[in-house]
Amino acid sequence: MLWGSHKMSDKNIQVTLANRPVGWAKESDFKAVETDIPKPGAGQVLVKNLYLSLDPYMRGRMNDMQSYAPNVQIGQVMVGGTAGEVVESDNPKFKAGDTVTGYFGWQQYGVSDGAGLQKVDPKLVPLSAYLGAVGMPGFTAWLGMLDIGSPKPGETVVVSAAAGAVGSIAGQIAKIKGCRAVGIAGGKAKCDLVVKEFGFDACVDYKGGNLAKDLRAAAPKGIDIYFENVGGQILETIALQLNPFARIPLCGLISQYNEVKPHGLDNFVMLLINRVKLQGFIVSDHAAQSGKAVEELAGWVRDGKIKYRETIANGIENAPRAFIGLLKGENVGKQLVKLF
Amino acid sequence: MLWGSHKMSDKNIQVTLANRPVGWAKESDFKAVETDIPKPGAGQVLVKNLYLSLDPYMRGRMNDMQSYAPNVQIGQVMVGGTAGEVVESDNPKFKAGDTVTGYFGWQQYGVSDGAGLQKVDPKLVPLSAYLGAVGMPGFTAWLGMLDIGSPKPGETVVVSAAAGAVGSIAGQIAKIKGCRAVGIAGGKAKCDLVVKEFGFDACVDYKGGNLAKDLRAAAPKGIDIYFENVGGQILETIALQLNPFARIPLCGLISQYNEVKPHGLDNFVMLLINRVKLQGFIVSDHAAQSGKAVEELAGWVRDGKIKYRETIANGIENAPRAFIGLLKGENVGKQLVKLF
Repeated sequence: MLWGSHKMSDKNIQVTLANRPVGWAKESDFKAVETDIPKPGAGQVLVKNLYLSLDPYMRGRMNDMQSYAPNVQIGQVMVGGTAGEVVESDNPKFKAGDTVTGYFGWQQYGVSDGAGLQKVDPKLVPLSAYLGAVGMPGFTAWLGMLDIGSPKPGETVVVSAAAGAVGSIAGQIAKIKGCRAVGIAGGKAKCDLVVKEFGFDACVDYKGGNLAKDLRAAAPKGIDIYFENVGGQILETIALQLNPFARIPLCGLISQYNEVKPHGLDNFVMLLINRVKLQGFIVSDHAAQSGKAVEELAGWVRDGKIKYRETIANGIENAPRAFIGLLKGENVGKQLVKLF
Repeated sequence: MLWGSHKMSDKNIQVTLANRPVGWAKESDFKAVETDIPKPGAGQVLVKNLYLSLDPYMRGRMNDMQSYAPNVQIGQVMVGGTAGEVVESDNPKFKAGDTVTGYFGWQQYGVSDGAGLQKVDPKLVPLSAYLGAVGMPGFTAWLGMLDIGSPKPGETVVVSAAAGAVGSIAGQIAKIKGCRAVGIAGGKAKCDLVVKEFGFDACVDYKGGNLAKDLRAAAPKGIDIYFENVGGQILETIALQLNPFARIPLCGLISQYNEVKPHGLDNFVMLLINRVKLQGFIVSDHAAQSGKAVEELAGWVRDGKIKYRETIANGIENAPRAFIGLLKGENVGKQLVKLF
């Protein structure tokens, strides 16, 4: 068996939403519960989830607010992408031992009729990468940078949360396209990683206290593309250094997800003055392009043109703590939870 | 002579920038000066300006701030579009009596080597319309609505400053394209005009005190395109009623041009949640398309599909007062100054 021999317990640990957070999410907003492992019915498969992906968008699903996707209800299992192994199958498309990605949420096991399950090949890239560089975060970077950003050789591209799962890939794609890539990250260790490991031309530590000045030094010709993951004061600073006809793929606003009253954009007028194109996007709207993206990303990973890092928490019971750490920027690269 | 017999004085009255305003522009920020009528040199034409166009963008040119176009310097003639008649010509492309549009600024006469001058036919539409519905404001509406907005039949389009030179045309183009057009304007008289004269389906009076509720009633299916001319609290309200994949052609932010500390967009996160495309634009970047736009607009005006209104001040000495009135929304339709 691919993942080593392991004795299956007959229990499935899940993490559910216990409370809707006001402001910062905290561990007590989650609750671990133990249920029976579900039995696959006719045409169904049972999947043992080996990795759970933790992503910033999950904070939004904890709120009671209309958004682009249904919220998690109190008592429901938290949503999330997973990678795992088929344990039992009554579906002709899958057999025991297949490795698959799915969307089973924060739990150890899941049952599916096959819809939303994607067979993946762990010999091509490691299974966990299908949740990161070659999965949803990589696709997000690919889509925002190429479709909305339209990078041209010689342009300056700034990426916030540059040490994160999406930002690190976005900057490396900008490099592949011949741009100057400047990262923004929190702290010297992350900035070193962004430059030395991910190959950005420069990285600005937003905690350094001189964001505007440091950014101007790192992007002396102004900013042509700003891949936005964070919002708040970083966005305000960027807005004053945009070049005419700049593009802003608006991917996330992680600095604001835990704010009761989010900071918007005071320097909004700069979008008019510089004729900026800003576009919000969510990968799930663009599923038709994911095959092409994943193929291209896998090629870049194989060729060493894209590198990635992972931060892995152990055990589903540690998912809430790891998730809160992700929101605080404690991770480097892709935040995962290893479930077994 | 086309414009009737008139005895040419030998003086040229100009309006110059006297002070850079802080906050609201006031009449004392301008100064009228009298100079000699310029003499056209070799290859040049002398144009008598019959109409001066007053436009919100001029407020930005009074500031000492980097923008998309050079600022007006203290003592310089205020910039602006004009329509007039060639009085003398040493340029083979123009002859006395030709009617032309140009960019001579706030003055009665101007000299040019022909660059930037456009011969126009006042038998097709009245000369003044070449500064309005069939000129820069019409082209602005055309470009923002069609190129950025991409209206589809059945969509709901909201236009702010809907009784103004650009907004009134933008909404009528939306109607031509089969959309529901909802205007926002200040006061009952303007709203009546927007619906009865310009043919919008509804108009919301932003001074009525119930903007959010009234807007929801006028756009019950949500907003697919928001043609933005004003910014501030109206934009905040719109942001909460956008549909997924809404487009915002960002044309102007007139409510903020006189603010020392402009209001941006607190509800910025809605652009992400609804995957909105927002794009700032300035027509001067798109000169190559103006011929096509003007032709199409002239056709719509001739066919009665686009109606327009003008507010005309008399005499160049009244330009500052009329301009301040424009910034306060006192005009209806295109604000012009008749110079003779």
